[in-house]
Amino acid sequence: MVDASPPKWHLAHVTWFFETFLLKPFSSGYVPFNDAFEMLFNSYYNSVGQPFTRAHRGFLSRPTLQEVLEYRQYVDRTMTQMLQDELSETARFRIEVGLHHEQQHQELILTDIKYNFGNNPLKPVYSDSGRQACAATEMNWVAFDGGLVEIGVSGSDTFVFDNETPRHQVFLIPYQLASHLVTNGEYLEFIEDGGYSRADLWLSDGWSHLQSLHANKWHAPLYWRKSEGQYYEYALSGEAKIDPHQPVCHVSAYEADAYARWKGCRLPTEAEWEHASVESSLEGNFVESGLFHPSMPSISQPGNSGLHGLFGDVWEWTGTSYAPYPGYQPFAGQLGEYNGKFMANQLVLRGGSCATPASHIRPSYRNFFYPPNRWQFSGIRLAKATP
Amino acid sequence: MVDASPPKWHLAHVTWFFETFLLKPFSSGYVPFNDAFEMLFNSYYNSVGQPFTRAHRGFLSRPTLQEVLEYRQYVDRTMTQMLQDELSETARFRIEVGLHHEQQHQELILTDIKYNFGNNPLKPVYSDSGRQACAATEMNWVAFDGGLVEIGVSGSDTFVFDNETPRHQVFLIPYQLASHLVTNGEYLEFIEDGGYSRADLWLSDGWSHLQSLHANKWHAPLYWRKSEGQYYEYALSGEAKIDPHQPVCHVSAYEADAYARWKGCRLPTEAEWEHASVESSLEGNFVESGLFHPSMPSISQPGNSGLHGLFGDVWEWTGTSYAPYPGYQPFAGQLGEYNGKFMANQLVLRGGSCATPASHIRPSYRNFFYPPNRWQFSGIRLAKATP
Amino acid sequence: MVDASPPKWHLAHVTWFFETFLLKPFSSGYVPFNDAFEMLFNSYYNSVGQPFTRAHRGFLSRPTLQEVLEYRQYVDRTMTQMLQDELSETARFRIEVGLHHEQQHQELILTDIKYNFGNNPLKPVYSDSGRQACAATEMNWVAFDGGLVEIGVSGSDTFVFDNETPRHQVFLIPYQLASHLVTNGEYLEFIEDGGYSRADLWLSDGWSHLQSLHANKWHAPLYWRKSEGQYYEYALSGEAKIDPHQPVCHVSAYEADAYARWKGCRLPTEAEWEHASVESSLEGNFVESGLFHPSMPSISQPGNSGLHGLFGDVWEWTGTSYAPYPGYQPFAGQLGEYNGKFMANQLVLRGGSCATPASHIRPSYRNFFYPPNRWQFSGIRLAKATP
Amino acid sequence: MVDASPPKWHLAHVTWFFETFLLKPFSSGYVPFNDAFEMLFNSYYNSVGQPFTRAHRGFLSRPTLQEVLEYRQYVDRTMTQMLQDELSETARFRIEVGLHHEQQHQELILTDIKYNFGNNPLKPVYSDSGRQACAATEMNWVAFDGGLVEIGVSGSDTFVFDNETPRHQVFLIPYQLASHLVTNGEYLEFIEDGGYSRADLWLSDGWSHLQSLHANKWHAPLYWRKSEGQYYEYALSGEAKIDPHQPVCHVSAYEADAYARWKGCRLPTEAEWEHASVESSLEGNFVESGLFHPSMPSISQPGNSGLHGLFGDVWEWTGTSYAPYPGYQPFAGQLGEYNGKFMANQLVLRGGSCATPASHIRPSYRNFFYPPNRWQFSGIRLAKATP
Repeated sequence: MVDASPPKWHLAHVTWFFETFLLKPFSSGYVPFNDAFEMLFNSYYNSVGQPFTRAHRGFLSRPTLQEVLEYRQYVDRTMTQMLQDELSETARFRIEVGLHHEQQHQELILTDIKYNFGNNPLKPVYSDSGRQACAATEMNWVAFDGGLVEIGVSGSDTFVFDNETPRHQVFLIPYQLASHLVTNGEYLEFIEDGGYSRADLWLSDGWSHLQSLHANKWHAPLYWRKSEGQYYEYALSGEAKIDPHQPVCHVSAYEADAYARWKGCRLPTEAEWEHASVESSLEGNFVESGLFHPSMPSISQPGNSGLHGLFGDVWEWTGTSYAPYPGYQPFAGQLGEYNGKFMANQLVLRGGSCATPASHIRPSYRNFFYPPNRWQFSGIRLAKATP
Repeated sequence: MVDASPPKWHLAHVTWFFETFLLKPFSSGYVPFNDAFEMLFNSYYNSVGQPFTRAHRGFLSRPTLQEVLEYRQYVDRTMTQMLQDELSETARFRIEVGLHHEQQHQELILTDIKYNFGNNPLKPVYSDSGRQACAATEMNWVAFDGGLVEIGVSGSDTFVFDNETPRHQVFLIPYQLASHLVTNGEYLEFIEDGGYSRADLWLSDGWSHLQSLHANKWHAPLYWRKSEGQYYEYALSGEAKIDPHQPVCHVSAYEADAYARWKGCRLPTEAEWEHASVESSLEGNFVESGLFHPSMPSISQPGNSGLHGLFGDVWEWTGTSYAPYPGYQPFAGQLGEYNGKFMANQLVLRGGSCATPASHIRPSYRNFFYPPNRWQFSGIRLAKATP
Repeated sequence: MVDASPPKWHLAHVTWFFETFLLKPFSSGYVPFNDAFEMLFNSYYNSVGQPFTRAHRGFLSRPTLQEVLEYRQYVDRTMTQMLQDELSETARFRIEVGLHHEQQHQELILTDIKYNFGNNPLKPVYSDSGRQACAATEMNWVAFDGGLVEIGVSGSDTFVFDNETPRHQVFLIPYQLASHLVTNGEYLEFIEDGGYSRADLWLSDGWSHLQSLHANKWHAPLYWRKSEGQYYEYALSGEAKIDPHQPVCHVSAYEADAYARWKGCRLPTEAEWEHASVESSLEGNFVESGLFHPSMPSISQPGNSGLHGLFGDVWEWTGTSYAPYPGYQPFAGQLGEYNGKFMANQLVLRGGSCATPASHIRPSYRNFFYPPNRWQFSGIRLAKATP
Repeated sequence: MVDASPPKWHLAHVTWFFETFLLKPFSSGYVPFNDAFEMLFNSYYNSVGQPFTRAHRGFLSRPTLQEVLEYRQYVDRTMTQMLQDELSETARFRIEVGLHHEQQHQELILTDIKYNFGNNPLKPVYSDSGRQACAATEMNWVAFDGGLVEIGVSGSDTFVFDNETPRHQVFLIPYQLASHLVTNGEYLEFIEDGGYSRADLWLSDGWSHLQSLHANKWHAPLYWRKSEGQYYEYALSGEAKIDPHQPVCHVSAYEADAYARWKGCRLPTEAEWEHASVESSLEGNFVESGLFHPSMPSISQPGNSGLHGLFGDVWEWTGTSYAPYPGYQPFAGQLGEYNGKFMANQLVLRGGSCATPASHIRPSYRNFFYPPNRWQFSGIRLAKATP
């Protein structure tokens, strides 16, 4: 799959970020580790040069992992020296971006390893952390008044990405969000009701995709496998029977939307989600739990509003297209390519997942993927208008 | 191209609409003209059955045009009889939808013939209406205060599509729209400034598309051809040198967005566009002018706000994804497939074109196409935030 | 399908042949009918110029059929005048090639119409000639001694294509050919024995193709359709139940090879076929019968050797790759592109079909198609080594 | 590229061969190393089961190289025990096939590593053996009388593959072969004469391929790169300027054929090649030289006939399609899939290469690849008919 890259590439790319955007421009006399790396480990910065073809990253048998680790040590060492000196504002800013960037790739390394292992007939175990059995929960609706509210961030003390700015007003009609994420057991009912074969439940593009070669005729979430009437799910702890009480995971936006329609509901908008999250604390099942799998609701406690698992567990698909906020300004210079140019054809996801570092997430954080993508830890929270 | 269908198919399909949604359910004793037509001329209504493959419509050498015309007469005749009787509310509603549906296909027949002729090396002339030379105009900015405004329609006396409902509040920060559409001459400056080879101007998906096989390395709008340093443009009146004062036409949303970025501007949102259009009269260069080509500003007069050519000439790309309005309800029954299921991956266009029937358009009308589409009469109006 | 062209294109192309290779070089003062036709109706002669894309021939709504017929009359008239004059040897030769070329396209018009009609859900009838019910026949083996024999043609009084030359020696070990073509009934046994799902019966490329998108999971010959346990076959006289005694038709070389392997036999080589045909008269079910469908053995009588239906009915796949004979010389000049450049990846077929003009065929005639092709009237005659 | 596999896969596959065809059927009580390997390391034996998708071999991060080496030791150990016992004729035969099979993969490991390294922008060095500078040579023609000759093998004392049998008669007209292989310098003349842009020189399929996406617009042999007017060639010893006296290598059959046509010659048939090779000794530049690159004619001495470099250096494309010899019988049982099912769409290559083990090659040896393939060490020897 073109979206997934090998761990070695991720390691080299986050190193490349510091070399390219900090050492080369700001560290006088810096000698690049290997000139060819500028192109090899560029992800998508056209302003830096023509990147190496994404789909071919997996073919790079050289540099070896050992060489990449040496590259990393070399850059780390030089960065450490640089940090001794007085730094310009631009340099300080880029270092902060570089750290958040590295957190993003920490999550991607996990999702990409999962994709590689999950498609390997051997179903290798990445971590023997085991799975945490989930208790049954009961979903109820949490209502919000809406009105003219504010989302986004301006002039924050803590780091935010450009796509979270500026803070601005949006008008929301009264709405309700589900207290819990959709579970495997609930999703299974959708499957058994013929959800994957009823055109009326699907967006037209979703229905086409479902039946295309790319989808290879989806009939369940990614990593689910049916054998003798029982569904099994591959997790980083290995393959096991699905747990009906766990949040369903690795569904595309098309599947999330079809499930919501089947329930007579819809997905939340990103403004609804962000507004609702204000009363929730930033606790949840993040990568630090070591589970690498959603788990409900053993870790996360409901916020004051009564919403469980808003942060962590799974990225929650919204029905909102990833677009610039009114008055949006991209980061200056080459980092302007970081977010802005992807504002087409993607949907916003919110809340982080069990593969996200806890310190990386916040209410205003906007993740984005294409509607058919499902190799991320992505799940479903239902919404509806208050009658 | 998979999006374009032959005129014969359009003629049969709009006839099929009346046969399927009116005669079969409401005209007792109705004998279908040909049972196979139910599948052949179904466009995308999965609730009616599996449609004939869109990409193969051009291969249908049978039924002949003569047979399709007989089909049309047969259905027209039966519909005329039906109209003598008392009609249920559902039937009356579907007739109205059927007429608006037919207007949509009148426009598509023209755009599809243009696509077929424009790709024929003979460059056939469809209509010798000639082109109307355009006078130079000067663009200025028209400012709007925004605030908490209303768009969309609820409980209208006149027909509206479900996707225009309900009327609802949106919050707009102060913004400005260009008084005129972008012209060929202005767009040519973008081309000559290397617009098609500067990655920094493009959305990432646009840049990829630009260089893909599908795009065949775009270097100008569709129907433009360069010969010995001069650009020519195919119109339904034949090929001629581009007129620098005419609105640029047949650009994709990617091109529109890149042009706007090059100018330091952006595309309007659909809410901005609709709010701004309130003071404009519904006049413009529509299909009735017989020009079948944009023409500025000889026909349309500016609205009170000072916006020229808001209606007619070209569909204006907005930067807004086609999505349901808050509280959106699809049409009941099979016609629920008309609009709602397409609310993914497309952008809204506003204002109608020189191929749109005048009585078909209104301020709240939402057209929608995919960002790379450019065989429709689509153009560019710039927007920016008021500083 | 990229291989099939519309009748209008065939009509124009055979006219183009005379205009390009005779009128333009040899008729002084000739004024081309339309300069653009040189490119539009060029099939594959790179020496003439860049041909119009084959896959787009179906999109040429202009010139109209009426214009093509006028083009044809114009060229016919000028050719008739030219024939009054003394002609050079080259001109006389090219006229003869042009006539044989036209016969080839007469066959292709029929196979291409059949492909277009056969894929139309209306299953239009091209000719109401009806089908000729076939009597049961019994296949027996006809043995040939082989040895050092000659095939091909040198210095003939009658026209032959360059690919049939020169006459040359080949060594054949003793072999046997089936007296009759494989019938629908025999082929049905192969299907019902799981022939299409047994990898061991297929060439590797055939097995891959069978399961590819292109083949859309073949499970029977082209134009066969199964409904409630019964196979139907589309013919130019319409769709009807398969006749078990008719020669099976519209099979690819992969299917022919798999069938032969299932029977413990093989396909003949082209040398075996040609050597065996010497004692057969050139009679058979050709296009002149008006059946446009194979028919066994009502028309063709066995040759002295006892081989039935060697000529006409169906083109017989051989196992021999289309390659130059030893000492092969292509036609001189631009007509050198006629045959030679196709000598890669194709297999030879022999004997003509029910769509071939009787005067076009001869024992040395080499037709050639790619192994997966099956829209021609192609069938199977078994062969084996004499034990 | 789908044709190339990682070294780890090759190692496992040749081990799998012994496990599947020897240990499982003949070693009572054998416990498979890992049941999943049966599918993972099956190349194409449908009779064994559904093989793992070839194009995905590169994604198998597990089993690790360490595990594959353990698998190999496990199977080697068990095979060694088995060899102590009395073996059936079938077992002895399969062991012999298994050894020859392993030699084939030794060559493929080299060509696949070269493909992986050669496409890596770092151009890694596999072996620092250096290149052997070649002296200039002069090509002359060596004539053969032909006539009714024999090729192939029956009842040999040494191992041969089934596709080399049986020995049989073919008739050859007098012909000549070039004394030397075509060199880089000679091929460069073809390039500089516009060889890659002259349609008249190419087979139709070759010309199409040349301009297709797959070929990415070939303009020189694989691994050639032009920089500032100079061609460089990647070899396993690294990238260097092309040596004009070295045999040209990594050309497809289409390129070989086009070059031959440009010289007014043709490629040899496989019968011509084999008949001519009778007087040559089996010496040449094989893998044992450690050069991993063609080298002329420093190692190989001409045979009595005067042909240089017939064995080793490069596989020589013939113009002959890979097809069964008259009376061909595949190996019995599952090994019948070894060769026979590939007898479609491929061409025969002869003589071995600088990556072939010396003990693997013989005059009757038939290698086969598709005409566009060029990642093997494949080159050109010209032929022509004796006037």
